[in-house]
Amino acid sequence: MTEVKAARRGRGGGGAARRAERTAVHFETARYIERNIPNLEILDEAALRIIETNAETILAEIGVNFVENPGALERWRQAGAEIEGERVLIPRGLARKLCATAPGRFTQHARDPAKSVEIGGNTLVLAPVYGPPFVRDAFGGRRYATMEDFQKFVKLAYMSKWLHHSGGTVCEPTDIPVNKRHLDMILAHMTLSDKPFMGSVTEPSRAADCVEMCEILFGKQFVSENTVMTSLININSPLTFDATMMGALEVYAAANQACIVSPFIVGGAMAPVSVAGTLTQVMAEVMAGVAYSQLVRAGAPVIFGAFVTSIDMNSGAPTFGTPEASQITFGAGQLARRLGLPFRSAGGFCGSKLPDAQAGYEAANSLNTGLYSGVNFMLHACGWLEGGLVASFEKFVMDADQLGVLHHMARGIDMSENGQAMDAIREVGPGGHFLGCAHTQANFKQAFWRSDLLDYKPFETWSEAGGADTQTLAAVRVEKLLGQYQAPALDPGIEQALRSYVADKKASMSDAFS
Amino acid sequence: MTEVKAARRGRGGGGAARRAERTAVHFETARYIERNIPNLEILDEAALRIIETNAETILAEIGVNFVENPGALERWRQAGAEIEGERVLIPRGLARKLCATAPGRFTQHARDPAKSVEIGGNTLVLAPVYGPPFVRDAFGGRRYATMEDFQKFVKLAYMSKWLHHSGGTVCEPTDIPVNKRHLDMILAHMTLSDKPFMGSVTEPSRAADCVEMCEILFGKQFVSENTVMTSLININSPLTFDATMMGALEVYAAANQACIVSPFIVGGAMAPVSVAGTLTQVMAEVMAGVAYSQLVRAGAPVIFGAFVTSIDMNSGAPTFGTPEASQITFGAGQLARRLGLPFRSAGGFCGSKLPDAQAGYEAANSLNTGLYSGVNFMLHACGWLEGGLVASFEKFVMDADQLGVLHHMARGIDMSENGQAMDAIREVGPGGHFLGCAHTQANFKQAFWRSDLLDYKPFETWSEAGGADTQTLAAVRVEKLLGQYQAPALDPGIEQALRSYVADKKASMSDAFS
Repeated sequence: MTEVKAARRGRGGGGAARRAERTAVHFETARYIERNIPNLEILDEAALRIIETNAETILAEIGVNFVENPGALERWRQAGAEIEGERVLIPRGLARKLCATAPGRFTQHARDPAKSVEIGGNTLVLAPVYGPPFVRDAFGGRRYATMEDFQKFVKLAYMSKWLHHSGGTVCEPTDIPVNKRHLDMILAHMTLSDKPFMGSVTEPSRAADCVEMCEILFGKQFVSENTVMTSLININSPLTFDATMMGALEVYAAANQACIVSPFIVGGAMAPVSVAGTLTQVMAEVMAGVAYSQLVRAGAPVIFGAFVTSIDMNSGAPTFGTPEASQITFGAGQLARRLGLPFRSAGGFCGSKLPDAQAGYEAANSLNTGLYSGVNFMLHACGWLEGGLVASFEKFVMDADQLGVLHHMARGIDMSENGQAMDAIREVGPGGHFLGCAHTQANFKQAFWRSDLLDYKPFETWSEAGGADTQTLAAVRVEKLLGQYQAPALDPGIEQALRSYVADKKASMSDAFS
Repeated sequence: MTEVKAARRGRGGGGAARRAERTAVHFETARYIERNIPNLEILDEAALRIIETNAETILAEIGVNFVENPGALERWRQAGAEIEGERVLIPRGLARKLCATAPGRFTQHARDPAKSVEIGGNTLVLAPVYGPPFVRDAFGGRRYATMEDFQKFVKLAYMSKWLHHSGGTVCEPTDIPVNKRHLDMILAHMTLSDKPFMGSVTEPSRAADCVEMCEILFGKQFVSENTVMTSLININSPLTFDATMMGALEVYAAANQACIVSPFIVGGAMAPVSVAGTLTQVMAEVMAGVAYSQLVRAGAPVIFGAFVTSIDMNSGAPTFGTPEASQITFGAGQLARRLGLPFRSAGGFCGSKLPDAQAGYEAANSLNTGLYSGVNFMLHACGWLEGGLVASFEKFVMDADQLGVLHHMARGIDMSENGQAMDAIREVGPGGHFLGCAHTQANFKQAFWRSDLLDYKPFETWSEAGGADTQTLAAVRVEKLLGQYQAPALDPGIEQALRSYVADKKASMSDAFS
């Protein structure tokens, strides 16, 4: 039972660890979603075949570039690809064949084994926003993100019931030198939360640092046998794999750690302005990237990613929660499933500058698309604002609350005798009411999803209480949660070892800010 | 060609009418949606059969009440039902057999034939909010609705590109006596808009007035041969059909005008607290109501309606955009299709008091559900606020803008050579960009849906322009649209006849305010 070992290792066997555990407050976390509803399949068989055939044509006739990466070119050459400079031309069928060794579903282990997640098949794992250089809150407005902000988001993610994952770069801690950030970020995920997390991808050596820190947290043997990180490898679309991201992928794949291979596409700029064209390019790019991961280590866990937005051709700005981006997400989900790979896409996307109605519409459009398109790993599920430039504290708790909608929707419909409720209908009869009947009394507590944030009060009560809008309610909730936060128990010896590792690493480097 | 006749009749053949038409400004209206994407079918065959069997059990063993309506009881008796007092017990199979004469799809004609709508099959027709006694705007706050508000909403609906229908009681004009309101409301729909509209259901005589006014607008012969109104008949759930609503249904069905037969259910109060139980009751109620419409006139157009919300068991308030309500909507869509009937459900629902983020999330959840569940007629598609107590001017234009998302999503994916865009991918190649390529230039204008309301500006530009939130932008848009409004051309003779009809009717009544 590796879970038990992980638990013992994570929570520690010593007296100090037991004392720490006894005093810890536990925050409820929902299990990852297992869909009991079908996906919406918007492309028919003929359309899927066209896209798959065209994707193979791209790989065979146009090819992809692996930039400044002679090792990758050599791997591809040995696998049977044709190399022209940095261009890799992949014969029809080869990429698909290589992709076949990647698992269709894998476990990412968390420090708390109850929070380990299954990624693939019918599951949906929800992770917070990734990458914003700015933060915004109702009090301080918009400003550069700091490590203190980062830690607050990790705490909020830890306390968010519907969020399964602590994420990665929940915001960029711009007050920490670039070459040291990953150490503080991983340390925060490891010590402030016990949910699964993501590793650094900004340089291969930083990925290696993350693996070493995981070996301290989980034990070297455990990490060699299990996946404990899922990291984000963006493709430099169109059709380009740069050495930094590929270097990180090489480190993680070799260590059997999971990577999301994800085209990052603003439609009309990095891909054709059409949905089918973009899907074709996404398919070609992901197949090449996943195939490469399997050349590094056959069987390494990897996710079919698709980050796609449309563009406002008036301003050039990326736009979110739009129908064409949704269509691409639906289509990409079908392509991923046919390739037998877990699928990453969607999120609580919006272009709005504020956590206002625009943010609500756009995020909900995107969250709904994520659920119905069969996404298995949803990065950016909460906290995303202003096209990803800003991590918003208020939007974080708004989105995190809405993730409960996805959980309840995905459960499907209870068709048991109790669900059918024929006794209740008989008991109440025409013209009666159900509030007091036995079936309602027995079931009302679990019957309906209830927001922990939104306002359900009558107008008069709401008005007398100040008439707060959602942003105001969310700001109150952020403060309340952060006030209640208590760190999950961690073996003090492990924590000390992690802090020493970070201190030693930092001491060995000079500061770099770019 | 009945459309041409309607056009001539509506727009008039005289010189005054031609002059009016020449000076009229035309506002673009999108054609009703024809889905080119599948519906999401969340119930499997076994579940559907259980619900259908249970619904027949309800009708046969529990029955439905037709209150204070001896004529209805007599119709049911003659059709083979068993009558006990006001209770109608419908033998298994009878209701379904009677429903079979209702058309699966019908045309509701508009004064402008280009705006006539098809309801049923793969179509989706969008209509505004219905019924709120209050209105809200950014300037005046929340207040009782007046006829002036009503007229403004009709104007906004007329100018909203993605809205196909003028609706009915877009708000309650509380400054007009109850017994005269329907006359002014229908007159506003007929004269301020040329989109299709709904008739009054608050008393059978008022329904008859609406038919007579349609005979003036469209011509008596045309109305006798065509459907020109779709009206909302709520069932008094559980399992009760009151005389007022049934009286209106009898008038409309006899005149071959369409009715939505719609249970109005706050889950846990008017139906069991479970999704399957509510679906079963909805199925039974709609089958009884639709069957009755066919007893009045076989072949009368009728829609399977389902207005369902969940309830907050803490406060007793209905809640909107929630997962259980969505599940019911998905299931009801499947049941309607199996019964061969057009389906009405969903809307831009929200419980929020303000057009804020809560309103955005909840409305988008519900709009997405409406699209993917196969709704054919969506009432409340825009303007709904505060659980339907308030018609919001700002939310009206916010939702109306989002309806464009549904249109573009429903188009499905263009799989033509141009859509596949292989030439573009070849032209650009690895590392290039698509903004300047021939395919982008040829396609960018139609490629992506673009909001007419939401903010897409860069942060700095947005901030310098005042940092407006969505509500503020919407308030500006409301003012702008109302300032641009011009009435569609109408034959002055017809308009005069309508106004005389209303004046004469009003003169024959004393005022009633309840």
